[in-house]
Amino acid sequence: MAMPLNILEKSVSKRVSVMLKDGRSLEGKLAGFDEYMNMVLEETEETKEQQTRRLGTVILRGNNLVAIVPK
Amino acid sequence: MAMPLNILEKSVSKRVSVMLKDGRSLEGKLAGFDEYMNMVLEETEETKEQQTRRLGTVILRGNNLVAIVPK
Amino acid sequence: MAMPLNILEKSVSKRVSVMLKDGRSLEGKLAGFDEYMNMVLEETEETKEQQTRRLGTVILRGNNLVAIVPK
Amino acid sequence: MAMPLNILEKSVSKRVSVMLKDGRSLEGKLAGFDEYMNMVLEETEETKEQQTRRLGTVILRGNNLVAIVPK
Amino acid sequence: MAMPLNILEKSVSKRVSVMLKDGRSLEGKLAGFDEYMNMVLEETEETKEQQTRRLGTVILRGNNLVAIVPK
Amino acid sequence: MAMPLNILEKSVSKRVSVMLKDGRSLEGKLAGFDEYMNMVLEETEETKEQQTRRLGTVILRGNNLVAIVPK
Amino acid sequence: MAMPLNILEKSVSKRVSVMLKDGRSLEGKLAGFDEYMNMVLEETEETKEQQTRRLGTVILRGNNLVAIVPK
Repeated sequence: MAMPLNILEKSVSKRVSVMLKDGRSLEGKLAGFDEYMNMVLEETEETKEQQTRRLGTVILRGNNLVAIVPK
Repeated sequence: MAMPLNILEKSVSKRVSVMLKDGRSLEGKLAGFDEYMNMVLEETEETKEQQTRRLGTVILRGNNLVAIVPK
Repeated sequence: MAMPLNILEKSVSKRVSVMLKDGRSLEGKLAGFDEYMNMVLEETEETKEQQTRRLGTVILRGNNLVAIVPK
Repeated sequence: MAMPLNILEKSVSKRVSVMLKDGRSLEGKLAGFDEYMNMVLEETEETKEQQTRRLGTVILRGNNLVAIVPK
Repeated sequence: MAMPLNILEKSVSKRVSVMLKDGRSLEGKLAGFDEYMNMVLEETEETKEQQTRRLGTVILRGNNLVAIVPK
Repeated sequence: MAMPLNILEKSVSKRVSVMLKDGRSLEGKLAGFDEYMNMVLEETEETKEQQTRRLGTVILRGNNLVAIVPK
Repeated sequence: MAMPLNILEKSVSKRVSVMLKDGRSLEGKLAGFDEYMNMVLEETEETKEQQTRRLGTVILRGNNLVAIVPK
């Protein structure tokens, strides 16, 4: 069985798309995460209502994540 | 009595539809899950307001799920 | 005193209506539940804004339930 | 000092009105409750936007309650 | 330093106004409370959009309170 | 490193502005707080949509606070 | 692997932008944080709907943060 945290670990150093609770979506290179699914993304871009913004490194709170999509 | 996590376990490798809190719906092959109902879906498609988007592998946070419907 | 989980246990194999936080309502045969009130419904029908949809077996997250009404 | 759970215990077998987080209001005979304030109401009536609906026995999740008003 | 629960204890038998998360406001005599800030109010009046309703005794869930204002 | 609870402790007896989740803002003298960031404000004024209301002593639930701004 | 709290620690004394759940955004010098990601920002500016407000020192509750962006 594919465990969620294992799949996440395999995605480290790769690009992932992250859907947030408020409808925003971030895409970046997954640099790391902890047991609460707090994450570090690098070279991150935020997309909201078809507008894109470069954010660089971002620390994300795990409790605001809806889904993580490895690219 | 049919325990929720047992029914979920029987659905591994099968297609499930997942209803999220924000009204979105995802359908994919259930690759695995953990005790918090965090899940891994494969060959996932997102449906929102009658539009479909292919997402491939998706890691879902359990606390945003409303219901899981085995297909 | 009628304990909530006992009343729920007496409803196993019977039809129940479940009110969800987002206003949706599901009706199905209660196949089982766990300590978090996660539930398994069978032969489930979803009602939303007077439209009905057949869902079959559904696993429900307990933290999204508002009320359970045994039929 | 009047402890909340003691006052609730004194209301068992009596009619109470329950205000839910989503604005709905239920009135019924309090048949029992547990430590999480999950409750069992009997002969329950739901009131929403001045419409009343008879529900019979209802199991309520404690985390969706705002207030309980013994009648 | 004035600890919140101590100030609350000093308000027992006195009138308090309670602001709820949903914008409602209740005023009543604080009859008691527990460690979760669940409360019992007596001779309670609810105010919502400038309308007042007499509720008598009310048991309030602590997790829906925003603020308590001793009168 | 400036720890949040230490900064809060240094603000005791001084005026602070508190932003609540629902957009309301309270300003008062911080009389005390506990480990959950429940707080006691004195000589409190509430500001909402440019209207100000004097509230006197207020007990605030920590889980509804967004930010505290020492004046 | 870059752990979220380590990245945060490296940002102490540097400017960070913080996205809150309610859409507000704060920018300030990160003075410190604790295990719950409660934070202290100094020389803080709040941006909301293209308006900026100087707040000075701000204590932020960790459970209302969506993302932290080191500048």
